[in-house]
Amino acid sequence: MIVAMLEKATEEEIDAVIDAMVEAGVGVHRTTGQMQTILAGVGPTASVDLAKFEVMPGVMHVHRISSPYKLAGRNWRPEGTVVKFRNGVTVGGKQMVMMAGPCSIEDREQIFETARRVKGAGGSFLRGGAFKPRSSPYAFQGLGIPGLELMREAAEAHGLLVVSEVMEISQIEPMLPFVDLFQVGARNMQNFNLLRELGLIRKPVLLKRGIAATIEEMLLASEYILTGGNYDVILCERGIRTYETATRNTMDISAIPVVKKLSHLPIVGDPSHGTGRRDMVAAMARASVAAGADGVIVEVHPNADKAASDAAQTLYPDQLDQLMGELRLIANAVGRSF
Amino acid sequence: MIVAMLEKATEEEIDAVIDAMVEAGVGVHRTTGQMQTILAGVGPTASVDLAKFEVMPGVMHVHRISSPYKLAGRNWRPEGTVVKFRNGVTVGGKQMVMMAGPCSIEDREQIFETARRVKGAGGSFLRGGAFKPRSSPYAFQGLGIPGLELMREAAEAHGLLVVSEVMEISQIEPMLPFVDLFQVGARNMQNFNLLRELGLIRKPVLLKRGIAATIEEMLLASEYILTGGNYDVILCERGIRTYETATRNTMDISAIPVVKKLSHLPIVGDPSHGTGRRDMVAAMARASVAAGADGVIVEVHPNADKAASDAAQTLYPDQLDQLMGELRLIANAVGRSF
Amino acid sequence: MIVAMLEKATEEEIDAVIDAMVEAGVGVHRTTGQMQTILAGVGPTASVDLAKFEVMPGVMHVHRISSPYKLAGRNWRPEGTVVKFRNGVTVGGKQMVMMAGPCSIEDREQIFETARRVKGAGGSFLRGGAFKPRSSPYAFQGLGIPGLELMREAAEAHGLLVVSEVMEISQIEPMLPFVDLFQVGARNMQNFNLLRELGLIRKPVLLKRGIAATIEEMLLASEYILTGGNYDVILCERGIRTYETATRNTMDISAIPVVKKLSHLPIVGDPSHGTGRRDMVAAMARASVAAGADGVIVEVHPNADKAASDAAQTLYPDQLDQLMGELRLIANAVGRSF
Amino acid sequence: MIVAMLEKATEEEIDAVIDAMVEAGVGVHRTTGQMQTILAGVGPTASVDLAKFEVMPGVMHVHRISSPYKLAGRNWRPEGTVVKFRNGVTVGGKQMVMMAGPCSIEDREQIFETARRVKGAGGSFLRGGAFKPRSSPYAFQGLGIPGLELMREAAEAHGLLVVSEVMEISQIEPMLPFVDLFQVGARNMQNFNLLRELGLIRKPVLLKRGIAATIEEMLLASEYILTGGNYDVILCERGIRTYETATRNTMDISAIPVVKKLSHLPIVGDPSHGTGRRDMVAAMARASVAAGADGVIVEVHPNADKAASDAAQTLYPDQLDQLMGELRLIANAVGRSF
Repeated sequence: MIVAMLEKATEEEIDAVIDAMVEAGVGVHRTTGQMQTILAGVGPTASVDLAKFEVMPGVMHVHRISSPYKLAGRNWRPEGTVVKFRNGVTVGGKQMVMMAGPCSIEDREQIFETARRVKGAGGSFLRGGAFKPRSSPYAFQGLGIPGLELMREAAEAHGLLVVSEVMEISQIEPMLPFVDLFQVGARNMQNFNLLRELGLIRKPVLLKRGIAATIEEMLLASEYILTGGNYDVILCERGIRTYETATRNTMDISAIPVVKKLSHLPIVGDPSHGTGRRDMVAAMARASVAAGADGVIVEVHPNADKAASDAAQTLYPDQLDQLMGELRLIANAVGRSF
Repeated sequence: MIVAMLEKATEEEIDAVIDAMVEAGVGVHRTTGQMQTILAGVGPTASVDLAKFEVMPGVMHVHRISSPYKLAGRNWRPEGTVVKFRNGVTVGGKQMVMMAGPCSIEDREQIFETARRVKGAGGSFLRGGAFKPRSSPYAFQGLGIPGLELMREAAEAHGLLVVSEVMEISQIEPMLPFVDLFQVGARNMQNFNLLRELGLIRKPVLLKRGIAATIEEMLLASEYILTGGNYDVILCERGIRTYETATRNTMDISAIPVVKKLSHLPIVGDPSHGTGRRDMVAAMARASVAAGADGVIVEVHPNADKAASDAAQTLYPDQLDQLMGELRLIANAVGRSF
Repeated sequence: MIVAMLEKATEEEIDAVIDAMVEAGVGVHRTTGQMQTILAGVGPTASVDLAKFEVMPGVMHVHRISSPYKLAGRNWRPEGTVVKFRNGVTVGGKQMVMMAGPCSIEDREQIFETARRVKGAGGSFLRGGAFKPRSSPYAFQGLGIPGLELMREAAEAHGLLVVSEVMEISQIEPMLPFVDLFQVGARNMQNFNLLRELGLIRKPVLLKRGIAATIEEMLLASEYILTGGNYDVILCERGIRTYETATRNTMDISAIPVVKKLSHLPIVGDPSHGTGRRDMVAAMARASVAAGADGVIVEVHPNADKAASDAAQTLYPDQLDQLMGELRLIANAVGRSF
Repeated sequence: MIVAMLEKATEEEIDAVIDAMVEAGVGVHRTTGQMQTILAGVGPTASVDLAKFEVMPGVMHVHRISSPYKLAGRNWRPEGTVVKFRNGVTVGGKQMVMMAGPCSIEDREQIFETARRVKGAGGSFLRGGAFKPRSSPYAFQGLGIPGLELMREAAEAHGLLVVSEVMEISQIEPMLPFVDLFQVGARNMQNFNLLRELGLIRKPVLLKRGIAATIEEMLLASEYILTGGNYDVILCERGIRTYETATRNTMDISAIPVVKKLSHLPIVGDPSHGTGRRDMVAAMARASVAAGADGVIVEVHPNADKAASDAAQTLYPDQLDQLMGELRLIANAVGRSF
């Protein structure tokens, strides 16, 4: 950490800051410049609360020099993480993956027909929600565990893996037999208790970026899972909130190359939530792959306009087929394959 | 709801939209203009998913006419809600309230000394966290229920009410004996399961605005509590995320008059989280009161710079005394009192 | 336009709104619902100031039904605009274009060598700034018209077209002999006087999105040029300001498909300004093309790290070569070519 | 400036950075830590382009230690700037000021009647626009210099000062006889050529914050005026663009105490543009004063709902009277007066 003092800072103020740094377990190097004094703190600064120093008298600015995350940093595993699934599918390697399915599992016919079409299009994962926390108190709330049983059966029938959202710690245990990849939704990205519990299991986790989270905060959130010993974390860009209203969120495609630079974790793009509009999903899926994502997760439903939730952003199966054709060509252009 | 069709929309497209509206339980009035056709939907549109219509062929825009919330709307209780507490304190009436205390309850001495100073300054509520979900996995995590016991005792000793944050459904029951006002934090503003449970208890709830939530979303979130029959909801503005980095968040003071116009619920300002900086807290507390807030919630600690959490935004007790003097004068200027 | 009245609106309030609508030259259809009254205004509503109605007593919300822009709307030219240049290059058709060059024209050698490399990579336009409005008062301010003369000569020598930024009305006339495409920078997107003047010339205009502009505002800005009779407008997405700080701006790739849906105007992506970082430019250029852009504009300099301005986001010529190879493959994937 | 190298940075990379710093005229202090190397640059770093270092191989982060502005910094004039006008009115001292008037000067009667009411309410400045750059090409564009003549006459008749917006360099000269305070609008906050010219005149300037500008950028923009020798700059907070749509902009009240801490320049609040809604203006004017602003600028019109522009955010004269009564009380609460 670096503390830059104001030009007019007194010796007493400088000493008070040095004392506070030492008390926080940080070694201090002092540089007395012509204009201002600079204090460089070395040692275990990741857990130091910088804001506390910001408001001390005589302080101009405080800068964190080291990353606030460690295990998620690129340095920790420069070759990049490849998450391996039981059927040989990998995420983070040369192979790209398509994860697709309905927002909500609705019934047997829906999920089986979806699975058939996802497999047919070349997908690897069947996605679908069993617990739906809806913004409106008047809407469909999900089938729960029986829904997961149906999805598992449908996935097995077509050789797909299962990804589904976990919303509370109490759901982890009952979901374990049914999912291959636990999804943490955007609203739970900073539910640290949930993340910690997911760090203790031995199944991969798909961590979605919060709607107002910085990339750094997403990496810091992943650290909660990694520190538990679960190194199989896949990140997901799904749009952030900005002033633009033409799309539901603004999908931050640049988060993909940024994560690739800062971290070793794989990242996939979610253009369904990223745009909220079916007619924008294909363009943003292509952009994700072109920008270097390790895969794409989209909503698809055999009867998209009747979907019980998120109908507006859900693809028809024929659209998924066409999209996959385009994505294969783009994957080749960036030296990958679907 | 209003569906505006594109100029070039065909009769088939218009009919498809009308059918979908009828299917959604909405009556349709059609206006065929020189340029475009407009379909007005009347009836129970609050639960209709407008996005679904947005992406139908031939549709230009869809507008919601009625508010998506009902019970939280000003119309529902035009005179405004006044939340009454067991000791006679009210929130939402002519009287304004100060809620103050440490970010975290740390020990007996800290919380008793804080209570003494809060009462001395003219505060009505003692605030303090027992469960601390920290952004960094390496930080103090709170005392839990024993901390609440201490806070209760300290509050009783000084005639204060207790407000503390509830983070999970499982905490509601054990917290009930110790708190007068359940606080829902910004990260949980859209934790609808938690809100629903809080709708079933008979203690007031302080609902904080999410860091990326619109005012409309905050009102819709309050609806989850209100629909359960718990009408004692107090809203809280605590800053939103914007591109400005001089303050931790941008406190949206205008949310205060906007809520007063749209809703009957009381609203308080939280300048500690709103700014993240001790040296900005007083100015933003004054601004909150001047803009018409029903009270202020701030962090104060007898030894502010040693606070276990949020030290940078925590006031010294003497600062609280001075602030209360200023707030009393401003309250008078807007026809209220502290 | 649609005016939705509050449930409790009185007949007097409703009449006052109707009168105001009629006075604004708008015909009114009234629908009296069970809950609320809705007033639909038909006629020339594009120039009506809706905010004025928003604050009238008894009004809940006002919605604009028709687009605020006309000539820029997709309906006006459903087949899409193709801007044709004197040497046969087109923007907006099947062919995609690369525009590349330094931030600032520095000297003869620099601009000639850049032109050689841009042409070699397959570019069609040489870009370069002659007037540099720098954020810091202490920085290089550009060569002016002599710089444009150099750029013109370099472009001619390699069969390239010239694009350069115009910053004030007084610069249009002197720039005319030297540029093929007038660029309007992000800061001038709402400089309506400048736009109006550019509507009166007969050379194409590249209009960059303002850093805080919505897509709708960009289209409305283009309307100022179009209404003058200059229909050769090319839009440019170059990043918007959000809370994310990992990149200088957040490049809104979704603006590309949105513009394609709402407007007939071509749009190119500017990943140099969109990210501000050389190491992100290629990924975002690829994403732009994959999302359906009609071209890409990037900064390149034979000695990128010594560039007089924007060095950090400027590609080396070898990087441009490699990027063009990738973009050609992606263009094919979306049925286009470079 | 501080350059923090990556843990894995090589000696060659470190040397390249040191060379680049020296070349930029910066002295370098090297600290080789256990984990990483840190390079502190001292000397004239204000004009160094930090982004250039950000993308050098081996670099993790670059931090600016000194403020990018100098003359605008609090250190430069710790006692604060008080701008004095010819009639004895001051801005920045104990006295607060009200600036009020119509968005546009429309005719003699309007501006004289407004002046009368502004004076009657206790205002010091008459505001009014003569050149109106409207977002829509179909709207009223202003009276020009004849409008300023009318406004001057009206102001003189009532002992008021005149503030009006200058939009182009060519307007400065003709406006000089008519205005006491040149206003630079939000869209021109970074029109550096205009700012430089205003630095050369000897009349005060009111600089409005850009809709997407940080506070730091506003201070840096003021530096352009100050470096010309014109030290009479007054800043103005008028709302920034955020995702919230309930108000036209989000008025960043916290900018007021932040500016007071970082700079010696006075700052006023503009709640009319800050909210865009007449029914929010009073609350936000009060909040501005409570937060420590040196004054308020609002739109008022004798016939507010018929105003040629900005009608929705324009107060009725009676509302101004009432507001001034409240502001006087709040000013007292913060040790100031109106």
